[in-house]
Amino acid sequence: MLSRGDSAVVYSYHCAAPMRDLQHEGIEMHPPLPSSERVLMGPGPSNIHPRVMHAMSTPVVGHLDSEFLSMMDHLQQMLREVFQTENRLTMAISGTGSAGMETCLVNLLEPGDKAIVCINGVFGTRMKDIVARCGADAVVVEASWGEAIDPDALRSTLSETADVRVVALVHAETSTGVLQSMDEIAGIVKDSGAMLLLDTVTSLGGAEVALDNWGVDAAYSGTQKCLSCPPGLAPVSFSKRAVEHILSRKTPVQSWYLDTSMLSKYWGSERVYHHTAPISMNYALYEALRVVLDEGLEARWQNHRALHEGLVAGLEAMGLSLKVRADIRAPMLNAVKVPEGVDEKQVRLDVMSRFGLELGAGLGPLAGSIWRIGLMGHSCQASSVTTCLAALGWALNRQGCNVPDGVAAALERIGG
Amino acid sequence: MLSRGDSAVVYSYHCAAPMRDLQHEGIEMHPPLPSSERVLMGPGPSNIHPRVMHAMSTPVVGHLDSEFLSMMDHLQQMLREVFQTENRLTMAISGTGSAGMETCLVNLLEPGDKAIVCINGVFGTRMKDIVARCGADAVVVEASWGEAIDPDALRSTLSETADVRVVALVHAETSTGVLQSMDEIAGIVKDSGAMLLLDTVTSLGGAEVALDNWGVDAAYSGTQKCLSCPPGLAPVSFSKRAVEHILSRKTPVQSWYLDTSMLSKYWGSERVYHHTAPISMNYALYEALRVVLDEGLEARWQNHRALHEGLVAGLEAMGLSLKVRADIRAPMLNAVKVPEGVDEKQVRLDVMSRFGLELGAGLGPLAGSIWRIGLMGHSCQASSVTTCLAALGWALNRQGCNVPDGVAAALERIGG
Repeated sequence: MLSRGDSAVVYSYHCAAPMRDLQHEGIEMHPPLPSSERVLMGPGPSNIHPRVMHAMSTPVVGHLDSEFLSMMDHLQQMLREVFQTENRLTMAISGTGSAGMETCLVNLLEPGDKAIVCINGVFGTRMKDIVARCGADAVVVEASWGEAIDPDALRSTLSETADVRVVALVHAETSTGVLQSMDEIAGIVKDSGAMLLLDTVTSLGGAEVALDNWGVDAAYSGTQKCLSCPPGLAPVSFSKRAVEHILSRKTPVQSWYLDTSMLSKYWGSERVYHHTAPISMNYALYEALRVVLDEGLEARWQNHRALHEGLVAGLEAMGLSLKVRADIRAPMLNAVKVPEGVDEKQVRLDVMSRFGLELGAGLGPLAGSIWRIGLMGHSCQASSVTTCLAALGWALNRQGCNVPDGVAAALERIGG
Repeated sequence: MLSRGDSAVVYSYHCAAPMRDLQHEGIEMHPPLPSSERVLMGPGPSNIHPRVMHAMSTPVVGHLDSEFLSMMDHLQQMLREVFQTENRLTMAISGTGSAGMETCLVNLLEPGDKAIVCINGVFGTRMKDIVARCGADAVVVEASWGEAIDPDALRSTLSETADVRVVALVHAETSTGVLQSMDEIAGIVKDSGAMLLLDTVTSLGGAEVALDNWGVDAAYSGTQKCLSCPPGLAPVSFSKRAVEHILSRKTPVQSWYLDTSMLSKYWGSERVYHHTAPISMNYALYEALRVVLDEGLEARWQNHRALHEGLVAGLEAMGLSLKVRADIRAPMLNAVKVPEGVDEKQVRLDVMSRFGLELGAGLGPLAGSIWRIGLMGHSCQASSVTTCLAALGWALNRQGCNVPDGVAAALERIGG
C-alpha cells in the first residue's frame, strides 16, 4: 500500500480555504452561461464537430429504452472498428479518459500483482499512482519527457522481473507529444506473456490504433481529443484473455462503478441495470464515431499527419522548433519550444484574448518551456493551422521578437 | 475483504457471448441516431428542461479556460443553495449518481473501518457492496422494501456497535418510493458521533434536502432526476468535519478518479489539472440549477407534492393502490401495485408504444408486483399526470380490466 509520504500521490490539500464563496464576496449569483467560441488547439478538448453538437440535442430516453439499447449495440460495433478489434468487451465507461485508465488497471490488477509501467510523461506517472492504489507493485521503465520508451529497456526489465501481470504504456503522451511506435514493443510484451495495456486517449481517431494486430489486452481512450466529442466518456476494450483473467480474479474489483463484470451485464444482452448511462454523452459519442467512420480511418490519420507537417513547416519557417524529434512525433500534439526570453504565459493569454485561440501549457518538468499545440479531430483543419501560426507570430512580435511569416510555408507544405 | 462468494457482489459474468456482433449478424452498420420523444415517468432520467437542452449546445471551451473556471465557482455556489449547505467542498463528480455514492464511501472509509448501512431497497444494498470493496465492515440496519428505516432500530444498533465511522442511508429510495423522514434519524446519528452519509439522488430538487440542518457530513446526488438534466454528473458535498477526516486518513483513497483531495485542487482556487472536466455536462447542470433556483426551492417541493397528490387521487379513483403508506411516500417516485391478473410488463410496453410513456418496473423483490411512476423535475407537470392516468387506464382495459376514469379526480385534487 502507499503511505502518505509516497511521492506518486499528491496528498496534502486545503479545500476549506481556497474554494470561493461568491455569496459572501458579493458577486452576482446565477449569471447566464458564457458562450464564447474558441479555436481549441490545446491538449484537448478539441472543437466539437457540428454533427456531434447536434446529436446532444436528441431527446433523452430511458437507459433501458429499446432505442437506447439498440444504439448501444451500434456504438460498441463502431468502437470496435475504430479500435481495430474484434473484442466483444468494448464499451464506453461513464467517466472521462482517466476513468478509463482506472477501469483498465483496477480490473486487471489485484493486490500483490506486479505491473511494469512505462513512464515518459504525465500519464505514465498517473498509471503508476493508480497501480499503487490497487495494492499492486509498479516496476518503472522510464524515458525522458519528450523521448519514446526504449524497447530494449523494456525487454531487459521484463527479463529481470518475474510474474509481470501487465505492461502499461501510453501510445500518444499528451504531455510531451511523443507517439510510441508499437510494433517492436508489442512483440516484446507478447513474448513475455504479460498483458499489454495501452493508453490511446490522444491517439484514437487521429493515428493508427490496431488493438488486435498489436495484441493489446486492455485499452482506454477519451472522447475529447481526435473524436471531436465533448469530454465525458471513456471508450475501453478488453481482449478475450483479459476477460478470462478478470473472471478468475481472487478478489473483487475495488471499484463498484468501474467493475467490468457488472458493466458487461448492462452493455451485453442481459441488460441488467447497473448505473444510469449518460444518455446525451453516449449520443454524442455515437455521432462522433459515425463522423470518423464516414471520413474513413485512414483518411483521418492522413489528414492529421498532413496538417501536422504543415504546422511544423510553418513553425520552422518562423524559427521555432519542436521538443520531440521528427520520427516519434505525435501528429495531434505538437510540443513547441518557447524561445528564450519569451513570456510563454503571456503568449497564451494574448492569443486567447485576440483570437479566442487556446494553446496548451507545458506540464511538470516542461512547464514554462513548451507550448502544446493540439491538432485533434475537428480542430485539425487548415484554418486552425493558419490561425495558430498567424496568432503565434503576432503574439511573439508583441514581445519584441522579429518572427518571419509561417503561414505561406505551412500552406505550401499542406498543398492541395 | 469480500470473497467471491459474498452475496452482496454479483460476480459471475459472461461477457464473451452475449454482446452482440452486428457485423456478423448482417445488420445495418452506423444508422443515424434514433430521435423518438418520450414522456419520461420512470425512475429517471426525467424529461430534460428546454433551457438545459439548449445549454448543452453552448460552445465547448477548455477545462482550464477562465470562463469555465468562473462557471465552476457559480455552479458550486448554486449546488450549495440547492443542498442547503455552506460546505465549501461541494462540487460535481464526473460520473453518474453511483459514482457519487462511491466517491462518498471511498473517501470516508478506510480498510477496517465500520459503517452502519441502512437498507430498505436497492441503493442501500449497493452502499453495502461498496463498503465491502473499501475493506470496511458494514453493519446493516434493515427495513422491508417499501418501509422506512426505524429510528429506534438505528439507535439500538448504534448503541451496540463501537467505533462507527459512518452511518449511510438513502433519503428517497428510488426502488420503492419511500422518503425517509430525517429529523429524528439526524439527531440519533449526531448524538452517536458517527458521520452521516446521505443519498439524495432522487430527492434533490424535488423535496427538502437540508444538509446543514440535518448535520449531514457527506451527500451525493444525480443530475437526471428532479434536476431535469441528462444523467452524467454527481453533485456531492462534504462537511468541514468530513474534510478534516479525509485529511487525516492513514491510507490513500483507493480511487484516483474519485479522490476528493485531488479533485478539490481543481475545483478550488489552485486549479490544478486533475482530469478533463465534462464541459457540456457541467453546462447542462449549471443551467438546470439556474432553473431550479429561478423557480425557487420551496415552490419546487410544493409542485412535486401537489402533483404527486393529484396522481395518487387519480390512481385511487381507478381502484389502484400504492405500495408505500401515505406518510412516508416520496412525492417524485410512486410505487403502484400491479392488480392481480395483470401482465405488468405488457402494460409498460403498451403505454410506451402508444403514448411514448416510460414507466419503471419493480426491482429485486418488487419485480413484477409494482410499477414505478416518476414525477421528477421537468416530468412533474399536470400533463404528465393526465397522460399517465389516461394511458394506464387504457392499457389496463386492454387487458380486460374495467378501470374507472382517474383523470377527473386527479385534476380536482391538483386544483388551480
